Amino acid sequence: MRRKRYAAVGVALAAATVALTAIPAYAQDEPAPTIEDVQATADHAIQSGNLLWIVIGALLVIFMQAGFALVETGFCRAKHAAHVVSTNFAIFGLGFIGFFMIGFPLMFGGYSYVLPGFDYGLTEAPGGALLGSGNWVFLWEGGWAGTWFDSSKPALAGAAAGFFLYMVAFMDTVATIPTGSMAERWKWKSFVVWGLFCGAIFYPLFGAWTWGGGWLAKLGNSMDLGNGYVDFAGSGVVHAVGGVAALAGAIVLGPRIGKFAKDGTPRALPGHHIPMAFLGTFILLFGWFGFNAASTFASSDPQFAVVAVNTAIAGAFGSIICMFYVWFRSGKPDPAMMANGMLAGLVAITAPCAFVDPWAAAVIGSIAGVLVVEAVYFWERKAKIDDPVGAISVHGVCGTFGVLCVGLFANGKYGVDASGPGIGWNGTTTSVKDGVAEGVTGIFYGGNGVGQFLAQLAGAVVIWTVILGIAFAFFKVQSMVTKGGIRSDEDDEVAGLDLPEMGLLAYPEFGVGGGYGSGEVVPTKVSAADKEPVG
Amino acid sequence: MRRKRYAAVGVALAAATVALTAIPAYAQDEPAPTIEDVQATADHAIQSGNLLWIVIGALLVIFMQAGFALVETGFCRAKHAAHVVSTNFAIFGLGFIGFFMIGFPLMFGGYSYVLPGFDYGLTEAPGGALLGSGNWVFLWEGGWAGTWFDSSKPALAGAAAGFFLYMVAFMDTVATIPTGSMAERWKWKSFVVWGLFCGAIFYPLFGAWTWGGGWLAKLGNSMDLGNGYVDFAGSGVVHAVGGVAALAGAIVLGPRIGKFAKDGTPRALPGHHIPMAFLGTFILLFGWFGFNAASTFASSDPQFAVVAVNTAIAGAFGSIICMFYVWFRSGKPDPAMMANGMLAGLVAITAPCAFVDPWAAAVIGSIAGVLVVEAVYFWERKAKIDDPVGAISVHGVCGTFGVLCVGLFANGKYGVDASGPGIGWNGTTTSVKDGVAEGVTGIFYGGNGVGQFLAQLAGAVVIWTVILGIAFAFFKVQSMVTKGGIRSDEDDEVAGLDLPEMGLLAYPEFGVGGGYGSGEVVPTKVSAADKEPVG
Amino acid sequence: MRRKRYAAVGVALAAATVALTAIPAYAQDEPAPTIEDVQATADHAIQSGNLLWIVIGALLVIFMQAGFALVETGFCRAKHAAHVVSTNFAIFGLGFIGFFMIGFPLMFGGYSYVLPGFDYGLTEAPGGALLGSGNWVFLWEGGWAGTWFDSSKPALAGAAAGFFLYMVAFMDTVATIPTGSMAERWKWKSFVVWGLFCGAIFYPLFGAWTWGGGWLAKLGNSMDLGNGYVDFAGSGVVHAVGGVAALAGAIVLGPRIGKFAKDGTPRALPGHHIPMAFLGTFILLFGWFGFNAASTFASSDPQFAVVAVNTAIAGAFGSIICMFYVWFRSGKPDPAMMANGMLAGLVAITAPCAFVDPWAAAVIGSIAGVLVVEAVYFWERKAKIDDPVGAISVHGVCGTFGVLCVGLFANGKYGVDASGPGIGWNGTTTSVKDGVAEGVTGIFYGGNGVGQFLAQLAGAVVIWTVILGIAFAFFKVQSMVTKGGIRSDEDDEVAGLDLPEMGLLAYPEFGVGGGYGSGEVVPTKVSAADKEPVG
Repeated sequence: MRRKRYAAVGVALAAATVALTAIPAYAQDEPAPTIEDVQATADHAIQSGNLLWIVIGALLVIFMQAGFALVETGFCRAKHAAHVVSTNFAIFGLGFIGFFMIGFPLMFGGYSYVLPGFDYGLTEAPGGALLGSGNWVFLWEGGWAGTWFDSSKPALAGAAAGFFLYMVAFMDTVATIPTGSMAERWKWKSFVVWGLFCGAIFYPLFGAWTWGGGWLAKLGNSMDLGNGYVDFAGSGVVHAVGGVAALAGAIVLGPRIGKFAKDGTPRALPGHHIPMAFLGTFILLFGWFGFNAASTFASSDPQFAVVAVNTAIAGAFGSIICMFYVWFRSGKPDPAMMANGMLAGLVAITAPCAFVDPWAAAVIGSIAGVLVVEAVYFWERKAKIDDPVGAISVHGVCGTFGVLCVGLFANGKYGVDASGPGIGWNGTTTSVKDGVAEGVTGIFYGGNGVGQFLAQLAGAVVIWTVILGIAFAFFKVQSMVTKGGIRSDEDDEVAGLDLPEMGLLAYPEFGVGGGYGSGEVVPTKVSAADKEPVG
Repeated sequence: MRRKRYAAVGVALAAATVALTAIPAYAQDEPAPTIEDVQATADHAIQSGNLLWIVIGALLVIFMQAGFALVETGFCRAKHAAHVVSTNFAIFGLGFIGFFMIGFPLMFGGYSYVLPGFDYGLTEAPGGALLGSGNWVFLWEGGWAGTWFDSSKPALAGAAAGFFLYMVAFMDTVATIPTGSMAERWKWKSFVVWGLFCGAIFYPLFGAWTWGGGWLAKLGNSMDLGNGYVDFAGSGVVHAVGGVAALAGAIVLGPRIGKFAKDGTPRALPGHHIPMAFLGTFILLFGWFGFNAASTFASSDPQFAVVAVNTAIAGAFGSIICMFYVWFRSGKPDPAMMANGMLAGLVAITAPCAFVDPWAAAVIGSIAGVLVVEAVYFWERKAKIDDPVGAISVHGVCGTFGVLCVGLFANGKYGVDASGPGIGWNGTTTSVKDGVAEGVTGIFYGGNGVGQFLAQLAGAVVIWTVILGIAFAFFKVQSMVTKGGIRSDEDDEVAGLDLPEMGLLAYPEFGVGGGYGSGEVVPTKVSAADKEPVG
Repeated sequence: MRRKRYAAVGVALAAATVALTAIPAYAQDEPAPTIEDVQATADHAIQSGNLLWIVIGALLVIFMQAGFALVETGFCRAKHAAHVVSTNFAIFGLGFIGFFMIGFPLMFGGYSYVLPGFDYGLTEAPGGALLGSGNWVFLWEGGWAGTWFDSSKPALAGAAAGFFLYMVAFMDTVATIPTGSMAERWKWKSFVVWGLFCGAIFYPLFGAWTWGGGWLAKLGNSMDLGNGYVDFAGSGVVHAVGGVAALAGAIVLGPRIGKFAKDGTPRALPGHHIPMAFLGTFILLFGWFGFNAASTFASSDPQFAVVAVNTAIAGAFGSIICMFYVWFRSGKPDPAMMANGMLAGLVAITAPCAFVDPWAAAVIGSIAGVLVVEAVYFWERKAKIDDPVGAISVHGVCGTFGVLCVGLFANGKYGVDASGPGIGWNGTTTSVKDGVAEGVTGIFYGGNGVGQFLAQLAGAVVIWTVILGIAFAFFKVQSMVTKGGIRSDEDDEVAGLDLPEMGLLAYPEFGVGGGYGSGEVVPTKVSAADKEPVG
């Protein structure tokens, strides 16, 4: 009966004229339903709702690309605006192609998993033999609708598609983070290689070790560390990984011309469009609900609403506590910091969002709102690293903080028997009491909290050593093998990357100049005397 | 079985590797389902869809903050743009914190209610004893996941969370309305206090009397006035309440320097960015579908689609009739009015959207599109009140019109037995015919239409007396107790609030000047001769 | 029982106080459910999910209006920005009113259809006798909630509403396409007439012949051409139809002053705001998922997720292949082309998105990314037609390509027995094997692929002859009967349409001039010497 129902409701518009005949026939001639028929319909309703939530979540995360583009462009200078916004646009497709061709099977193909809620009694998981098999190429050789499509289980293609779409959107967030810290001085052709590399190789590595079921996820079973490394929606897997890549890239590129005086004193190079940056922040807030709340993979799990509220709480407290803190610290409620304060709260709550009480979300967001201010000052004033938009602080530092928060604030109430009776989060079977697998629990809530914290710490250390090292090596090697390195020509940087790199100006008609409202014409090539930009 | 199913579909990504084992086991070993099992699954599917719609609606309403920010900033002048956009950004967190800590229990805690669709046979509503009890602090002391979370009824925490998220988003709309009428001359620190006050006290008052089940909601039973005060999605509770606060604030602040000539003639101070304002309007239209259509609290109530269409109709007619009217009235199809015309239609349909026929939605939108033009002229030319973005007219005037429209156009078809057999909207038991509680009915459709209109009128009068008075008193008292008052320094206002209040410029590189394309450098302090801005 | 459940979950906020009483009563006193009760609940859950997806899809498509507005405005010059953004804003309401009053019944009224998934055993389809009957006016005379509303089948009004909202959003996409190709030189009052005409007459024509069940849809049964003309989400019905209207309008208006030198050499007139155009592109990508994936009309059809992924693949490959191609072709990775490359991929996949494998989506997107570059060059360099934003190339050319792709790449797996046993897509009964109606199949997959390709070709030819001819005749006749024609005054065009047509400037404070950063004051009337704009 499900099949029939599916045909009836699945008709697309063009077919609707005839559905008239089909549906009443169904209604009239169908024999009395059996309980198995009705159960199949009810199960199908649950599964459809889950898949819908995954796909809507994916759309929201994809829309976040617009948010990143606006925040980064708004915080950069007008003479580079077309370049910055173009990197944030092209990264979507570049990372996508890398992940589509190589990254997705690399991240999930080595391990078996079932697409959430859409099981048809498979004896083998569809992804079971992806790695190193003919199924490696399932995405582009025949595809889901090819290898897997079977008229008796049409849902399988849809579920695999929804899962891929959600995952590719997360990957693109990682890929776009370094476009912020490396803005205003990155050669276009070098950037293009990064986009492909990130989607194909860089992101899937830590991803496979955690969400792909790898060794970090298994720290619970292998070393009795709580439920292994737990990262609900990616403070670490996405944000900290992107943040350390942003750090590596900023180090390899070096600071922008004029950022530091000869004595090392940093100069402000203010963003050219504050309303644009705030619009981007709002779009990120909007999309973040898809990022976090749809990570339940199920609208049938009401915890997604708790996740949404925790996300909102952390963002709200992050923005306001940051605003007060920077007001107190610097004398003004700096709008740029305010925006980063909200993003800091959102990044930090991303790992623990499903596991913590609302008060903890408020505390986590508040701490992140302070932390991001101090981190921005640290990288700029102490480490002398130039990060035009604060990406290292927001994603790297606050993402790492969020990873650790799981090991501190997780209340033990979510994830009880998450994977079956006596089997917990990450398939952990070592944290069981009276036959019930413990929920994810942090130090403040007892249980195996210390073990959980150590698992989180292990993940954080891996990100700041192995993953940072890979990113650094990538940019360093790329810089050596690229003629002239990965950094733009000095003349181009001073004049603005828009004309030399992209062939047009972001604002050919506005009076964009070297300084506050100078209204000077932007030159394509500048004399040596112009090389010191004002800030 | 529901529990098990829930566990199976609710697995998050990290747990998915093991779900493989769990699900086939379920599929194979499960005994034949009982009808109660299947009913539980079907009910769970309905409830999940409802919660999903509430949460998606909340996201859409939260995204409206970006719309308000862009409309208000685009309609203000460039020299204040960072200040205006920052108020619209910070209000999200300020109002949120006030509502989270105090406002939510104040609005809903004094009355019992059941979270829509997620009942687990509670003998007492979760909100039953919030006010003045330990549960007052349920949001931050232990939280939903604390006090309420129970592994046998996990949905309750989710339902409470979804309800709170939707409600907090509505509150923020109220809080952000005065940032428009008070723009370009409001001290940041005074604004901050407003944000906290609105979320904690101001918004919840009228909210408790209506949506919280208070005396205005009970006018049907207490005074036989139709179904009591009915406001489906908040033309009154949100928009008119925000609009009168905007009026009070604009009166207390007084007009911007240069707005009126010495003889009282108003001068145009045109908005600096028309495309920005239109983008904001589009975002508001998009979000408004969440505002209105998700107010059914249920995707299982197909009326949500009727609400969505009525919303679109009113917005479309509002924009076009307004365009034609202002074209006829002033000679040009003024874009700023066109945008406000759509918003006027949307505000006006917000109260009646679930109760009226499509033709009535078109009429309501059209009238609002004319009304907003006359209202803008009235406040500016007759009342000499300076409202930079038209917030008082759009939200205050058209919101009040929308409240009254329920008493005129409601067709009596929706809300029949809304709260149970013989119990109508707002729990009204006095409008019953043949044992069936009457739907909400306006004067044009007979029934108890006159009573309904009087209930609506009562709400409108309360807003324009009590609520307006509270807002006025708040700003007046705040002005007296704040050193130098709540209005910015005159020099700051003339120079632009961005540098003195926020510490940066919205557009440091564009040639922003005092007038049309003057390209002058923006000074931080100006001489007396500069104090008269051009318009 | 469904009724009761519906009442219980459908309670709106104001009624929630009393629902407390109602729901436990239901839970306690209800007799044991029958299997028919449970089936009704399960069916209701499926239907609710489907309607929710249709309405969310409609919102996403409506939000695309913002995307079009930003892309077109960003790619135009600053002196026309308020005019261009206003046309894109007003078109929403103008087209809406035309479609609401006349277009919707014209498109769907001549044929019977069942609202997807919401059948209540009607013996006659609700739309059965719309055309030429009293039901013609069902939208505004009594409306859905009037004629159709029946307390025993409340879902019908909702389903009709959801269907209308989705359809009206598609229409508005058509209406807005010519605002791009005709930008910077179109009289406001002439534009207004187009908006009403498009919604009322122009769009519904081809729509009735295809999605309305007309002769093109019936080519399978009438001439054995596959499953007749198949266009899943409107590469042809929406984009190519809009694209040929854009072509007709651009021809009738002629090129902008200064676009071509006397010898016919085209000059670049660069867009004034590249980040704005990219933001618009991101919004279009976001909305496109509603456009394509919600065209299943059902979240219960998991193919919607496959559609979403194919859409993303085509957009990603379109943007990147286009970027590489234009980089190779012109020496720079032109951002404007990059954005159009993504849109080209999205337009091309719109017809075949449900029928093709992922590899085919990548191929289709890639070809479209190259095709759009060559098309832009063709119209500008060979045909000497001025299309400021590339609308003819993106929507007209790539839309036509997408229509043909169905006849090439459709894999035959989707649409099997789409309309009932032995009845295929479009109600086709001529492509049946062993009693099973063939899925939609293109040449590369055998079956009746050649016939399918010919049906697609027929649709494409009709668009480029009949529909193009109607559009051309409309603009030509309008130009003759309008005093001074439909093109703006020459002086207005040179000075910018903002002040003379709209009465304000888009950016009164930015130093907008005739050329790069000239900072000149924009004049309202210019001398003859100024008439040659720089590019």
